[in-house]
Amino acid sequence: MLERLMSSDTGGLTWSLIEKARARIADKVNRTPVLTSATLDALSRSHLYFKCENLQKCGAFKARGATNAVFALPDGEAQRGVATHSSGNHAAALARAARLRGIRAYVVMPENATQAKRAAVTRYGGEITWCAPTLAAREASAREVVAATGATLVHPYDDLAVMAGQGTAAAELLEQVPDLDLLLCAVGGGGLLAGTAVAAKALSPGIRVIGVEPAGADDAARSFRAGRIFPSVNPHTIADALRSALGERPFAEIRRRVDDIVTVPDEVIVAGMRQLWEVLKIVVEPSGAVPYAALLARRAELHGRRIGIVLSGGNVDLDQLPWGVPGPGVAPPALEVTPARE
Amino acid sequence: MLERLMSSDTGGLTWSLIEKARARIADKVNRTPVLTSATLDALSRSHLYFKCENLQKCGAFKARGATNAVFALPDGEAQRGVATHSSGNHAAALARAARLRGIRAYVVMPENATQAKRAAVTRYGGEITWCAPTLAAREASAREVVAATGATLVHPYDDLAVMAGQGTAAAELLEQVPDLDLLLCAVGGGGLLAGTAVAAKALSPGIRVIGVEPAGADDAARSFRAGRIFPSVNPHTIADALRSALGERPFAEIRRRVDDIVTVPDEVIVAGMRQLWEVLKIVVEPSGAVPYAALLARRAELHGRRIGIVLSGGNVDLDQLPWGVPGPGVAPPALEVTPARE
Repeated sequence: MLERLMSSDTGGLTWSLIEKARARIADKVNRTPVLTSATLDALSRSHLYFKCENLQKCGAFKARGATNAVFALPDGEAQRGVATHSSGNHAAALARAARLRGIRAYVVMPENATQAKRAAVTRYGGEITWCAPTLAAREASAREVVAATGATLVHPYDDLAVMAGQGTAAAELLEQVPDLDLLLCAVGGGGLLAGTAVAAKALSPGIRVIGVEPAGADDAARSFRAGRIFPSVNPHTIADALRSALGERPFAEIRRRVDDIVTVPDEVIVAGMRQLWEVLKIVVEPSGAVPYAALLARRAELHGRRIGIVLSGGNVDLDQLPWGVPGPGVAPPALEVTPARE
Repeated sequence: MLERLMSSDTGGLTWSLIEKARARIADKVNRTPVLTSATLDALSRSHLYFKCENLQKCGAFKARGATNAVFALPDGEAQRGVATHSSGNHAAALARAARLRGIRAYVVMPENATQAKRAAVTRYGGEITWCAPTLAAREASAREVVAATGATLVHPYDDLAVMAGQGTAAAELLEQVPDLDLLLCAVGGGGLLAGTAVAAKALSPGIRVIGVEPAGADDAARSFRAGRIFPSVNPHTIADALRSALGERPFAEIRRRVDDIVTVPDEVIVAGMRQLWEVLKIVVEPSGAVPYAALLARRAELHGRRIGIVLSGGNVDLDQLPWGVPGPGVAPPALEVTPARE
């Protein structure tokens, strides 16, 4: 782990770490397509480039960071396995990466986790330890698992190798579409936004990078304004993957390199999600639609001729669509929405 | 129209016509991505390559044929516009192509056409003539429109320029994935299957091309066995884009070049559609899921190491999903389905 320790010691994520991550994971994750739409371009009066991480392995960008972290481990450490107490996309991505490397993945999961989340982990051979549904119980269980197995804990975002892996999505996007004015990226724990900002500013120094956060989980926006981390208190948003508290390592990069963080209300997130399904013909989860929702809300600071949008994931329960019960008489959300008020 | 007349005179669709179509439409339609999935590969015990025409302009492969037909017209003829009495994806695709060329598109549409279909045509500036909802009324109205305007009628599939355009999807796929053993393609009117077969056999002579049809609209399968066109009588299937009667020109190609046509029941089409949404994270319409449904039904003749699947379209009403009313207590279709019986 020399590389991870060194970069941690020197204080942050570098373009060099992202470049190494790209080489390390190139044959293990998808080079996802970039979709465009004349309809959405006309609606937004700009050129939009959607980086489809919903079409990534495991249905989310999390495959990038988890794969980089697992394959960056030296053999001796790797042999004892990896562990996490995330129950979302990171857990499945970590289990998949561990299987690819032929090592064990221990996942601590709250007893109330959905069947879908459990299935995503066990599909890749992840070994689940159940715990009470509190953060304290999860952390305690994770410590026990690590103590018992010697596994390396891979945090879903507060980890330089994970952040470097997440940054490879923006690196790819800027190779596929080199001359973007603006890049929009969701922020929850901050791993994707940190990696995105480091990659984007390295490859395209003039680009603006703006984080987008649900209004009901706005700890990153408040932290960004204050210059110090605000805790995430009772986050309430349909964008479940963005309820995480902002991490310290991601925040250090975000402070230095991100131009702004804006928030969007849930109703605009849902309208954006539906519009992406209808027009782009792809399945995007609520969290994945958050950066596009910022455009829908016509935030004045989001002008730009050529705008990159990272669609972070597509893992959604098809029996629980947020536009309500289908059937005659249900009005779809309006295509045009009123500007958001913070 | 020399080229179209000539090829019509000499009796059929050639690889040369498809090559010309590719060059003609290259900067006007999407080069759609090919998606793969380790999960679906494991389920099917083969390697699947999904050609995503749901991500095509207008959400369907129809953009290819309509664009080729419109841009193949000589200037004098084009100036009088184009017309069709299709009310589905072809009508929107024709309106879009006409707008790109700066000419008018006249679309005869039954009074009971859905608002979504009307909107898709008017979005691109197509001019709608309403008629009674019978084939006779549509054909009569179309003749009147053509007589009054001098527009060229562009049939949705029984037209060599349209068929050549549709063949460009398979040509692209075989460039993206050169060594396929088998290619699965839906058949309704037959334009896509005919173009697919001509392109595939030209580029990869050893490939098998199999058409897949809903069991409730099996005129192509019956016609293929009998060697003559059976009429389509009261087609009944959720795959609405495949209810069309098989066309003569497509059938001539299909007889010569397609290896078999198999049918799948609606419940397997719906299960396949849902599985594609869940695993590939893309929106596929019922008709688009038909060739994949043939694999789900584990038809013995569909073995093959490397299988190409043309996902033809993604235009679906998100308020009318065929897996029923979402909400707690609704069981999703089983991932494994029993073999279909014809």
